[in-house]
Amino acid sequence: MIAILKQNTTEPQKKHLIEWFEMQGLKVHVSDGEFRTVLGIIGDTSTMDLEMIELLDIVDSVKRITESFKSANRKFHPEDTVIKVGDVKIGDGSLVTIAGPCSVESEEQILEIAKAVKESGADILRGGTFKPRTSPYAFQGMRQEGIQLLIKARELTGLPIITEIMNAEHLEYFEDVDIIQVGARNMQNFELLKALGRIDKPILIKRGMSSTINELLMSAEYVMAGGNEKVILCERGIRTYETATRNTLDLSAVPVLKGLTHLPILVDPSHATGKRALIEPMSLAGVAAGADGLMIEVHNHPELALSDGPQSLVPEDFDKLMTKIRRVKEAIS
Amino acid sequence: MIAILKQNTTEPQKKHLIEWFEMQGLKVHVSDGEFRTVLGIIGDTSTMDLEMIELLDIVDSVKRITESFKSANRKFHPEDTVIKVGDVKIGDGSLVTIAGPCSVESEEQILEIAKAVKESGADILRGGTFKPRTSPYAFQGMRQEGIQLLIKARELTGLPIITEIMNAEHLEYFEDVDIIQVGARNMQNFELLKALGRIDKPILIKRGMSSTINELLMSAEYVMAGGNEKVILCERGIRTYETATRNTLDLSAVPVLKGLTHLPILVDPSHATGKRALIEPMSLAGVAAGADGLMIEVHNHPELALSDGPQSLVPEDFDKLMTKIRRVKEAIS
Amino acid sequence: MIAILKQNTTEPQKKHLIEWFEMQGLKVHVSDGEFRTVLGIIGDTSTMDLEMIELLDIVDSVKRITESFKSANRKFHPEDTVIKVGDVKIGDGSLVTIAGPCSVESEEQILEIAKAVKESGADILRGGTFKPRTSPYAFQGMRQEGIQLLIKARELTGLPIITEIMNAEHLEYFEDVDIIQVGARNMQNFELLKALGRIDKPILIKRGMSSTINELLMSAEYVMAGGNEKVILCERGIRTYETATRNTLDLSAVPVLKGLTHLPILVDPSHATGKRALIEPMSLAGVAAGADGLMIEVHNHPELALSDGPQSLVPEDFDKLMTKIRRVKEAIS
Amino acid sequence: MIAILKQNTTEPQKKHLIEWFEMQGLKVHVSDGEFRTVLGIIGDTSTMDLEMIELLDIVDSVKRITESFKSANRKFHPEDTVIKVGDVKIGDGSLVTIAGPCSVESEEQILEIAKAVKESGADILRGGTFKPRTSPYAFQGMRQEGIQLLIKARELTGLPIITEIMNAEHLEYFEDVDIIQVGARNMQNFELLKALGRIDKPILIKRGMSSTINELLMSAEYVMAGGNEKVILCERGIRTYETATRNTLDLSAVPVLKGLTHLPILVDPSHATGKRALIEPMSLAGVAAGADGLMIEVHNHPELALSDGPQSLVPEDFDKLMTKIRRVKEAIS
Repeated sequence: MIAILKQNTTEPQKKHLIEWFEMQGLKVHVSDGEFRTVLGIIGDTSTMDLEMIELLDIVDSVKRITESFKSANRKFHPEDTVIKVGDVKIGDGSLVTIAGPCSVESEEQILEIAKAVKESGADILRGGTFKPRTSPYAFQGMRQEGIQLLIKARELTGLPIITEIMNAEHLEYFEDVDIIQVGARNMQNFELLKALGRIDKPILIKRGMSSTINELLMSAEYVMAGGNEKVILCERGIRTYETATRNTLDLSAVPVLKGLTHLPILVDPSHATGKRALIEPMSLAGVAAGADGLMIEVHNHPELALSDGPQSLVPEDFDKLMTKIRRVKEAIS
Repeated sequence: MIAILKQNTTEPQKKHLIEWFEMQGLKVHVSDGEFRTVLGIIGDTSTMDLEMIELLDIVDSVKRITESFKSANRKFHPEDTVIKVGDVKIGDGSLVTIAGPCSVESEEQILEIAKAVKESGADILRGGTFKPRTSPYAFQGMRQEGIQLLIKARELTGLPIITEIMNAEHLEYFEDVDIIQVGARNMQNFELLKALGRIDKPILIKRGMSSTINELLMSAEYVMAGGNEKVILCERGIRTYETATRNTLDLSAVPVLKGLTHLPILVDPSHATGKRALIEPMSLAGVAAGADGLMIEVHNHPELALSDGPQSLVPEDFDKLMTKIRRVKEAIS
Repeated sequence: MIAILKQNTTEPQKKHLIEWFEMQGLKVHVSDGEFRTVLGIIGDTSTMDLEMIELLDIVDSVKRITESFKSANRKFHPEDTVIKVGDVKIGDGSLVTIAGPCSVESEEQILEIAKAVKESGADILRGGTFKPRTSPYAFQGMRQEGIQLLIKARELTGLPIITEIMNAEHLEYFEDVDIIQVGARNMQNFELLKALGRIDKPILIKRGMSSTINELLMSAEYVMAGGNEKVILCERGIRTYETATRNTLDLSAVPVLKGLTHLPILVDPSHATGKRALIEPMSLAGVAAGADGLMIEVHNHPELALSDGPQSLVPEDFDKLMTKIRRVKEAIS
Repeated sequence: MIAILKQNTTEPQKKHLIEWFEMQGLKVHVSDGEFRTVLGIIGDTSTMDLEMIELLDIVDSVKRITESFKSANRKFHPEDTVIKVGDVKIGDGSLVTIAGPCSVESEEQILEIAKAVKESGADILRGGTFKPRTSPYAFQGMRQEGIQLLIKARELTGLPIITEIMNAEHLEYFEDVDIIQVGARNMQNFELLKALGRIDKPILIKRGMSSTINELLMSAEYVMAGGNEKVILCERGIRTYETATRNTLDLSAVPVLKGLTHLPILVDPSHATGKRALIEPMSLAGVAAGADGLMIEVHNHPELALSDGPQSLVPEDFDKLMTKIRRVKEAIS
């Protein structure tokens, strides 16, 4: 850790601060410049509250120079983590595809989509059951009933299933789910993360809409610190000023994360863009950027099937997309 | 609600979509332009999923024209909501000051600060007990023990107390707390919001770091839809590209919210800026912008008391600040 | 254009506004909802100042429903624009690579890099001569002398050259340059854009760091409205809260732009990421997202050549990258 | 300057880099931690290109610890700069108000507004003449003719005048203007800034929509480095994800700038918010935050005067606002 002191710091103040650091068992390296003094603080500073130190009157700014995540850190764990779910391996260099509807709506719907994505080569079935909705008046999902339908779809197709949890109290319903998803809005629901650290099941964490890459890794660390090392990360778009897309898919996060952590990284192009026409190009771009997999929404809207054309990615589109995905994956291998 | 159709939409597609809206009990007004058709959809669209409609192949974009929040909407409830906590009234045109430390750390600390802020004229005592920390290795707060210390401080000073909840499972510990705070990171923890809607106690909701004003109101709506109408909103800074301050305090949100809702609005200048020197000017600016109150961190760092100068807002600073706050409040009244 | 009126608008006010629109030669369609009136304004509104109308007391919000760009609009010009520079075609479905150093620093440097990138298959040579630098104390570029060195490099290699202009007064120096670049900081330097609209030479416009896709197209429109239709667009990263990369490369902008305009779109992964390790994955992702070309910085730092390894993309790296780029391009074709 | 080296840096590489810094006349302080080496580089690094150093393979990150602005730096010039324009003093502790229309539209309009704002106590008259418009089809301003009308308004009222320049080639038209404004879109038009550094006239620089506080100061530095030290800064809102306001007025920038520089700081609440109802609260908040002045748009729309109510801040509103502004200024003095 580096602390840069303000110009007008007196010698007694500086001495006092250095002693305080030393009392915490840290070593301090002092470097005096013309206008500023820089303290290099050496030792384990991971429990230290940088914001509190930054509030000190004599401190201009503080900068961590070793990452505060440990279990997720590639530095201490250079080999890629491979997570096995049934026969599927995530993070072993292959490309995994998770596909399915935004919400589980009915048995007919989920079974039909499950069969279709299985045929097209998807590896895992997704489907929302507990739905985080901005409005309390909107459909909140089929909840545990939806999970039962996902399980039926797994029986039919053999595809492992993933669905989102919103509250640790619901954990009992997720016992037979293969991967538990933490949504973007709950990425810093630390009590939920702690609870997921106590179970033995793969956890997929979506990056919060305005979370930094470092914060995403710290959320993974919450789960791993509890003992559950099966964490998968997922980039799904960040909030920016641009309104042409729902969010801005930050594909640079993929190689940045690959450098910082050994955990697998997926990309979700559906939520980020909010537009059907962008799913194909952004899926291919995600693969080219080095993602370990994709998470793609596939719908069938019989109730909305307008006369001459479907809307959003339907099974036939997904099938064509899978062919292109495989070609790009091959090209970069 | 307005739906703008794409240029190449065929007549049968348009007809099909209109029929679908009408099946939901809505009326549709068609307006054909040279390049685009605009549908005006009239009726209660609050349960409708705009994102799903936007995904339709023939739809270019969708825009809500009536707000989707109802209980929080000033349109249906023109008079200001006034929330009473003991003798303190929030939202009645006066200025309420909530003060106290970031975290409750010890009995000595919280009692000393409580006495000091009481003397300076603070109305309510704050103090973190369950702490949402980015790192699992950082101090997670004194939890229920901290709440007991807050209660002692209330006994000593008569100040009502507020502290943050992170999980509905902890609700039992908060029974004797006067106001329950929902932190920025949990603003869209919808399960927590629902649980808080079922109790009868004032809830202060902090705006999420990347939440829109509309989303903040929708979170208030979650609590209110459950039956608890005692909601207080709090602006605490949003995430932007600027790094000179920890977050960017969005003071325009105060008059915008005042126009949209009848709920009281507070401003927290401490978390937003992260710098001691900014607390005074941004507190005064918050008052001038029309806030119903302020939430200010006041510390005493005996362990870090450097020889010739305190660090961050200490009780003496707070006392001087209170005098200035009162003068600005008077000037705008 | 759609104007949504405020709830409390009176009939005479509404009538007055409608008459005002009609006086401008526009037709107005009125749609009355329960709480709001929506005006559909039909006709050419491209000269209209939306912000002024939005300021009107009775107007809640205004939304354009036809784009305000015309010459750049794919709707009026469905076929892709192909721009020829010597033998190179930009926008014809092939992938064009522009490569070269950030700044032209010496004859030796630019000739060496030019030869190297030519051998690796680059199509066009780039090199900064007039440099927009945040600090007035930093190197401002070799200016016209640098352009002369680029011309020498073209003579040697046959590669067309591109360099950035900062001021219309410098246009005379650019007479023998093949493509003139407008940098991100000058994307809304409208006087410069107008001057470039009066010449007959391809103009590459980089997206401003905080410009929307719509604003980028409006800047292209400034050049095209003057008569110069040879405009190339370039995504180079936008400013967001994330600090792990210098900017956030917004690859979704590529397919969004492809839908809105017939102009070619390039991607610059070097400036966006600021990190050598990200250039390869983001170049490949740019190709997979559908870009018409890439703009890549290639350096040779003899003065900084540290003992066992070069720093940033050097010619050998670029050569390997070109092979991968060609494979991904083939995979998506 | 601090450079943090990557973990795998070899001793010869480190030595090589240190030697290179020393060759530039700098001193290097080495601090070896367990995982990282930190170099403290002491001396004048203001001409150094941090981005280039950050690209080096062995460098993890670079941080400036002394500001790169000199003339604008309060450290070297502790007393506030006071800029005199006629009898008006900007930066002397008083509050200066600049008022007038967005654009000069006609003689009648500008004279009428000038008289009105003079009577309400405004100090300086503003009015756009060369207009930076997103669309080439929108009204581009009355240009030099507009400046002549501003001069007439000055003759009538005695108010000094300010208007925006877009291009150094127009400087001749601005000879008789009292303050020249650089708009947000031209804040990094470095060629224009250099030209303004060569004249002797106050320059008001508006913060770019996505510019950092540091970049704003570097733009001031461009003007000052040329010899013109009469620079006024203006916060006018930054681009964020929030769409309830046109931009987000960053009032924290006022006290931050006050700490970093001796130059006067104004606030423009009109452009930032884009809504009439927000001008009053944000003007008062700007004063409370410590601004040296305000820049407020005042309109008169005879052609759009709807039956029972004006639109946007008209002279009568401005008059009432001035009374409140004076009260808040007094309260904080």
